[in-house]
Amino acid sequence: VEQKYKIATFGSHTALQILKGAKDEGFPTLLVSLKERKSFYRTYPFIDEIIEVSSFSQFPEIEEQLIEKNAVIIPHGSFVAYLGLEGNKKLKVPYFGNKDVLDWEGNREKQREWLENAKITMPKKFDSPDKVDRPVLVKSHGAKGGYGYFLAKGKKELKERIKSFPDKNYTIQEYIVGVPVFVHYFHSPLTGETEIMSADRRYESNVDGLGRVPNWELEPSYTVIGNFPITIRESLLPEVWDMGKRVIETSKELIGGGGLFGPFCLETVVTNEQKIYTIEISARIVAGTNPFIGGSPYSDLKYNEQMSTGRRVAKEIKLAIKEGKEGEVLG
Amino acid sequence: VEQKYKIATFGSHTALQILKGAKDEGFPTLLVSLKERKSFYRTYPFIDEIIEVSSFSQFPEIEEQLIEKNAVIIPHGSFVAYLGLEGNKKLKVPYFGNKDVLDWEGNREKQREWLENAKITMPKKFDSPDKVDRPVLVKSHGAKGGYGYFLAKGKKELKERIKSFPDKNYTIQEYIVGVPVFVHYFHSPLTGETEIMSADRRYESNVDGLGRVPNWELEPSYTVIGNFPITIRESLLPEVWDMGKRVIETSKELIGGGGLFGPFCLETVVTNEQKIYTIEISARIVAGTNPFIGGSPYSDLKYNEQMSTGRRVAKEIKLAIKEGKEGEVLG
Amino acid sequence: VEQKYKIATFGSHTALQILKGAKDEGFPTLLVSLKERKSFYRTYPFIDEIIEVSSFSQFPEIEEQLIEKNAVIIPHGSFVAYLGLEGNKKLKVPYFGNKDVLDWEGNREKQREWLENAKITMPKKFDSPDKVDRPVLVKSHGAKGGYGYFLAKGKKELKERIKSFPDKNYTIQEYIVGVPVFVHYFHSPLTGETEIMSADRRYESNVDGLGRVPNWELEPSYTVIGNFPITIRESLLPEVWDMGKRVIETSKELIGGGGLFGPFCLETVVTNEQKIYTIEISARIVAGTNPFIGGSPYSDLKYNEQMSTGRRVAKEIKLAIKEGKEGEVLG
Repeated sequence: VEQKYKIATFGSHTALQILKGAKDEGFPTLLVSLKERKSFYRTYPFIDEIIEVSSFSQFPEIEEQLIEKNAVIIPHGSFVAYLGLEGNKKLKVPYFGNKDVLDWEGNREKQREWLENAKITMPKKFDSPDKVDRPVLVKSHGAKGGYGYFLAKGKKELKERIKSFPDKNYTIQEYIVGVPVFVHYFHSPLTGETEIMSADRRYESNVDGLGRVPNWELEPSYTVIGNFPITIRESLLPEVWDMGKRVIETSKELIGGGGLFGPFCLETVVTNEQKIYTIEISARIVAGTNPFIGGSPYSDLKYNEQMSTGRRVAKEIKLAIKEGKEGEVLG
Repeated sequence: VEQKYKIATFGSHTALQILKGAKDEGFPTLLVSLKERKSFYRTYPFIDEIIEVSSFSQFPEIEEQLIEKNAVIIPHGSFVAYLGLEGNKKLKVPYFGNKDVLDWEGNREKQREWLENAKITMPKKFDSPDKVDRPVLVKSHGAKGGYGYFLAKGKKELKERIKSFPDKNYTIQEYIVGVPVFVHYFHSPLTGETEIMSADRRYESNVDGLGRVPNWELEPSYTVIGNFPITIRESLLPEVWDMGKRVIETSKELIGGGGLFGPFCLETVVTNEQKIYTIEISARIVAGTNPFIGGSPYSDLKYNEQMSTGRRVAKEIKLAIKEGKEGEVLG
Repeated sequence: VEQKYKIATFGSHTALQILKGAKDEGFPTLLVSLKERKSFYRTYPFIDEIIEVSSFSQFPEIEEQLIEKNAVIIPHGSFVAYLGLEGNKKLKVPYFGNKDVLDWEGNREKQREWLENAKITMPKKFDSPDKVDRPVLVKSHGAKGGYGYFLAKGKKELKERIKSFPDKNYTIQEYIVGVPVFVHYFHSPLTGETEIMSADRRYESNVDGLGRVPNWELEPSYTVIGNFPITIRESLLPEVWDMGKRVIETSKELIGGGGLFGPFCLETVVTNEQKIYTIEISARIVAGTNPFIGGSPYSDLKYNEQMSTGRRVAKEIKLAIKEGKEGEVLG
């Protein structure tokens, strides 16, 4: 049954995890790779076929090939980064996920509407620097991989620093003092279940190096370099799980096409009073799942196999094929 | 043989680990859950049965039911937190562990006597703020999950801050500059062996977020939000293991009922001279074992199966039943 | 076939990993242990035999015994630390690895020549404190386990602190602001493949505790106490892998005896612009592989078994024996 489709993705982000998971579930696999990365990816025997591109934005040129090969695309962070929202929506090759979600995720106002409707606690948002009365985080729109953020302790510092900020399209959020926790979920439209797959804490440069250099007054930056596996205090888990469920339920009401399904991530900050603030949603597999290619503490509770989020996606497609419900998972 | 008992615990802390481990060892499982957490725990198929309570302190009311069902309780951090020391000692349902240990663990003076007798290095203790001559950590008695701590750089700061500290029942300890390392042990009364199961570093809010916010002079707090898996420098391991053994040996002499057995944790700080200070002992399974539900680097050395601390407990009970020695592990 | 040799090492560093891996691949195992650590190591059943020494430097006295027992030594960090470079080169017992590499690794000038030839980006080196124009890291030669480092913000601070630095044999390197990432590789001389095995971030005392103590102006130190498992942003992996390959290729040209093979580690710092600086190479198994005794996210991609770096070494020796090529892997 799984021979019907080839699982395909771009060579970046979580591609190794996705294709290894696909192979473990019995699918043929295909990678769209930059020329310079091809020799690296070729060392992994679970990648059956590689199509070379000179840039990921060249993707539309090879799309026809993928359709002929019965490829199913598993989108990850690099898809939005390189093809843009519109580029993703225009794809004709079968695509795991609901493309209607892209508009809600890609627009900060709509994202906030979605999460607030789901009764997810978010940091306060400031419409203008003048209204700022506390520490804030300023985020460039479309910032990828943590690049394009800055912190300001208050209005004065904010106004000074915003002058030299390259992007004029930004959001000002209350800065929540706490620790970042990224929770990885998977929602199955076929079984209706929402699972916690794993959790990570990002490893960011240079901010996670600053504690090592006392009193140097260096400017923090937030470029993601890697990920640490973590587990979450169990007394918080029921609430964390319920947050994921509410996000799914609300998406069914607000968003067409059945709402969000598949892997997603809530990027939270947890305060010393154990209050969970959600900063953002990623409506797809996140790189924070990479520590768990061989399974996570949470997936080990549910599966007798090493169940990465990438593999979980393949499992869902396999089930959809078996039940003749590909239409429910492929956009 | 394992059908003789149901393994039971409260739905919090390490309940998922404990019941998954019990099921892997062939036991039926039972969870005592708060109403609002029931739907979460119900998604885990290794939990055979759930008894609902409106608060964990309501436990005595359902104890009779548990006895009838042949439940064996595996106590974790929430037991002391919600039932209190006396509440634990009064339990009539079979209970994994030696309740005589509770008095020694729950009283800071007795705990210090125990550890010092075991030749465990501890931070200096100050009887009164007046005697303080170095940085200190002030801990509220009965602080749970890291809440209710503060640091003071010296006598002056201490005296100022102690005025507004809500709890008048506190301990003043020398603050050891170093890195926290929590070591998880298991001692088998049946085989006499003490094993290192795993190690973690707590993830605390907001202190583990402060390095990310330069020069804001925020007050650190120590609420545990999660755990990072770590491994310990191998040249320290023989000493770390010996510390665990000495704690067990000394407990046999000082404490009735055969002393401490089962899972326990030494919360240490290791200095840059590789000196290991022990801050506290937890005489039961700790949440720091949760990253290792699928096994740890240390348990992978010993077992050909995924051996969490929760599962190790179930394995011990199974062995006790097989050898007709339940009396040696159940209090 | 694996019965031909016993795998042996010193009881420290990565010994548990190495001998567990050897046993998993079917080899008899032997440990050279300090007297006081013997009872610890004896609890691990995969260690078949222990030879006791009062100090690792006593090793030459027992070497004849090891030769008679057909032992193959797997060197780790403690070998250079305790026997010295010359002590290692004089060993007559079969030794996994190419001893010609020791001279290139042990001398900072030759190491730099090697890495620069491999087009590895390194921090700028300063020949004299007078030339320093930026933050620098000062390293004692032969510093082990992270002890014997200090940071200086500029020339003035450097000159003041160098006066009281105990070791007059030191290196001054540009301090790269970023996050440390240690990448563990394995190169097989038999298949010609270079693999990424895993990655870690060291856990160092007291520097990794300083973020927890605000405004105390404590002197950072860098004693390694343990290791955190991490994964690396996938878009960096092809470059990371290529770095390892270039280091191997260059070693074949510069170093006799076929160059570097087996496990090695590049100790890098990654900046917020995702530029990877390599601080140092370790031409053997590093302690950062210990979180992965049960396999890593990267080894899980390649192997259907739990493949630690220690086990990977044993696998290579097994293959060499099978192909009659022991001469290619044993020095």
